[in-house]
Amino acid sequence: MAKHKKQPRPKAETPKGFRDYFGAEVTQRDAMLRAIAEVYDLYGFDALESSAIETVEALGKFLPDVDRPNAGVFAWQEGEAGGSGDWLALRYDLTAPLARVYAQHKNDLPTPYRRYAMGPVWRNEKPGPGRFRQFYQCDADTVGSAGMAADAEICAMLADTLEAVGIARGDYVVRINNRKVLNGVMEVAGVLDPSHPEKFAEARGIVLRAIDKLDRLGTDGVAALLGEGRRDESGDFAKGAGLSPAQAGTVLGFVGARRETGAATVARLRELVQNSATGIEGVDELEQIAGLLAAGGYGADRIVIDPSVVRGLGYYTGPVYEAELTFEIFDDKGRRRQFGSVAGGGRYDDLVRRFTGQDVPATGISIGVDRLLAALREKGRMRSAGRGPVVVTVMDRERMADYQAMAAELRKSGVRAEVYLGNPKNFGNQLKYADRRASPLAVIEGAEEKARGVVQIKDLALGARIAENATLEEWKERPAQVEIARGDLVSCVRDMLASRSGGA
Amino acid sequence: MAKHKKQPRPKAETPKGFRDYFGAEVTQRDAMLRAIAEVYDLYGFDALESSAIETVEALGKFLPDVDRPNAGVFAWQEGEAGGSGDWLALRYDLTAPLARVYAQHKNDLPTPYRRYAMGPVWRNEKPGPGRFRQFYQCDADTVGSAGMAADAEICAMLADTLEAVGIARGDYVVRINNRKVLNGVMEVAGVLDPSHPEKFAEARGIVLRAIDKLDRLGTDGVAALLGEGRRDESGDFAKGAGLSPAQAGTVLGFVGARRETGAATVARLRELVQNSATGIEGVDELEQIAGLLAAGGYGADRIVIDPSVVRGLGYYTGPVYEAELTFEIFDDKGRRRQFGSVAGGGRYDDLVRRFTGQDVPATGISIGVDRLLAALREKGRMRSAGRGPVVVTVMDRERMADYQAMAAELRKSGVRAEVYLGNPKNFGNQLKYADRRASPLAVIEGAEEKARGVVQIKDLALGARIAENATLEEWKERPAQVEIARGDLVSCVRDMLASRSGGA
Repeated sequence: MAKHKKQPRPKAETPKGFRDYFGAEVTQRDAMLRAIAEVYDLYGFDALESSAIETVEALGKFLPDVDRPNAGVFAWQEGEAGGSGDWLALRYDLTAPLARVYAQHKNDLPTPYRRYAMGPVWRNEKPGPGRFRQFYQCDADTVGSAGMAADAEICAMLADTLEAVGIARGDYVVRINNRKVLNGVMEVAGVLDPSHPEKFAEARGIVLRAIDKLDRLGTDGVAALLGEGRRDESGDFAKGAGLSPAQAGTVLGFVGARRETGAATVARLRELVQNSATGIEGVDELEQIAGLLAAGGYGADRIVIDPSVVRGLGYYTGPVYEAELTFEIFDDKGRRRQFGSVAGGGRYDDLVRRFTGQDVPATGISIGVDRLLAALREKGRMRSAGRGPVVVTVMDRERMADYQAMAAELRKSGVRAEVYLGNPKNFGNQLKYADRRASPLAVIEGAEEKARGVVQIKDLALGARIAENATLEEWKERPAQVEIARGDLVSCVRDMLASRSGGA
Repeated sequence: MAKHKKQPRPKAETPKGFRDYFGAEVTQRDAMLRAIAEVYDLYGFDALESSAIETVEALGKFLPDVDRPNAGVFAWQEGEAGGSGDWLALRYDLTAPLARVYAQHKNDLPTPYRRYAMGPVWRNEKPGPGRFRQFYQCDADTVGSAGMAADAEICAMLADTLEAVGIARGDYVVRINNRKVLNGVMEVAGVLDPSHPEKFAEARGIVLRAIDKLDRLGTDGVAALLGEGRRDESGDFAKGAGLSPAQAGTVLGFVGARRETGAATVARLRELVQNSATGIEGVDELEQIAGLLAAGGYGADRIVIDPSVVRGLGYYTGPVYEAELTFEIFDDKGRRRQFGSVAGGGRYDDLVRRFTGQDVPATGISIGVDRLLAALREKGRMRSAGRGPVVVTVMDRERMADYQAMAAELRKSGVRAEVYLGNPKNFGNQLKYADRRASPLAVIEGAEEKARGVVQIKDLALGARIAENATLEEWKERPAQVEIARGDLVSCVRDMLASRSGGA
């Protein structure tokens, strides 16, 4: 440590855009991820965990906001400073790594390959309130199946998953659409020439991202982005796709094509894509998925066709889907709004071909873990906090072994328990500690109790607001305290905890 | 995708030193981590998850091999290429981030703060066979308690944890030592002047790392590293600590000071540290920990004092501990050897002071997750593979909804089930797929079965080696196939699975 003495102290701060998660924040997420994994497993999906680091070339560049530093990823070059090794990067999602994994291991994997994956991903974006640069995703994908049955299965599984973690039917809807329909509409509008797709790639990307912002910007905002561009509240100008008003109108007609029933929506879409072969194919695919889902009992109360869903990512080639929570919450400014999207996905038939040159169809879903967790907390579906431990206080620091024995006995019977390990001199500090630990009970055994073969058990929930400077004597007089035989410690504590949880 | 057409294809490879984990490799690790977390939780430790990325200054440099590229970490600078932002790095362990977390949030945390953490860490080391640059750790630490009761608790919990995950008593030993004793010995040997610690920092580091390699290099190798240095098998020369033969002898005497009983070892250590105040303090601490553990019933069959344990990391200041598995395995070259270390830790009273300038004692343990998992597999304590799904085959692609309904019914009753989603034309491929999925049963419903209201269920374990080109007719004639009423699908499948698992 000596060498640090003359250096300035390091700042005890997470890097900007990162945060720490404590206690129940961690265990609740784990519990939710386990519940999701159970559904995925039941559907025959196998676990996969790839490493956080990939080569930049393997990841590719598919993030919606390509104008970010380092194209939105955290990247560095292998070797010493200024080295000439591979460029490496932290994964920005779990889909790009899946394409690499499948291309690398396809001879050892079943085809079709159903896999799920969960873990953190990283985006090198400008951090903002509630926007973090590390967050969890939980994905399920099927690689190697071109049929719409794979997409229908993913949508059904998504609905089952939301219900399994605690989102009631009626509180969510899975909305599906198809990129081919949008491409067909753009073809009809003259924005996209199927024989020269690269010519319109940039405009197409702007159109996609503009539609994806519909719920945030409204129709006027999207229309501006489809045309010349849009100046936002901060004064920044976002370049538009350069569509004529007529073209923009056609695209907006598509976005608003949702009708009362799925059949009516499909009929309207058929009109809009006219003679575009791509568009017709997309409408057919939508019809197939809807048919399979209806046959499985997934009706319009759970899954609907909605042309306003496009998803921002560049790699989707056919069906796209999005799960939205439909109940209302109050936003930061106290306004009521729908909770919104918690999962999205779609078909990306070209991602594996990047590596192998061969067509490998694929489709899948990604759950935004943090948002879904926030929704469950909103709905009160998560135990609000962890259970605090029973705290064995230290009255006589020479008898630490006695106190440890009590904690050990409690743990052997499954009771979470710990000995106070701070400086035991000030007993009030021990009680403040127990309070901060949300401890249900404290155990006390001073010399006098030891001599009589008894211990005191203090019910801390009843005495939660302990005066900061209460003396031990004052504190012992409080009603919620019982004296029991030392030999009855475990049984009494268990009884008291059971009655507490029964009464809670 | 168009823009990729003219570019060379990206290589479908993990970066060097990284790997993918499939199926049971992932779920077995998760199950083990959950079992560990349960013990940690029972002891009153709270979950913490910090982000993978920290600032380089917060992480500090404490890795044993400081001569590696980028000092052993993956690091990069914030901002555009050549930017002037903070240097960020992936965490190389879970201890350095804990020190930062505690310094940052100490006003909101209980003191003492018991926390556990689990997750990947990254080391920018030269990859080698079985050596990966991303691996899991699972830590438990107590911050803010200076007493040896905290260390004793960690050691007891480590023993409990190993037994909880399936390492039998007798197959492991937790070995404890104390850095202060080593410092005392070095003081006596004239290698360390307590009033000028920085003067001997480099030699001290070499001594530490040399002793840490005792089981790999043997006494002679360590002696060479304590003296002038050592040339390894590859011809590389490692600079030694420059101790005289007499000094090296004193240090080696310490390393070999373990005696039959803990009391005898302590007595021997007292002789060795002579009048060094630091050394005597260390011996006293060892005696205290041993006493507390013995009182808790943790005898020499589980926890022993062993002066050869020093741990390589630079930040330990007092007690150090290591869990070793004592059963023998065969190594790569077919030689019998002990399984070795699976966990290590110790007290690091100065790590938080780096940030705050205030003394904050801390102690903790880190479990090498991958090594412990390998040990459990070695002992047959892990289900060797996941359970394969029931595969519903597709005889008639127009009736996909029927097949999905069967899979859905099975899943509703808790049976893992999936519909075959590949091209259904070649039925043999469906069976090969089921085989690769380790599927216990396949369900078949052709047009003829449909008309009669029956389905076939094929027991794939009995017919595991299906001829690659068997026709459907040949295959149907095999004995392990039953015809059942469609309405009995779920009950029959459940019965067949139950009888299989009963007979396995």
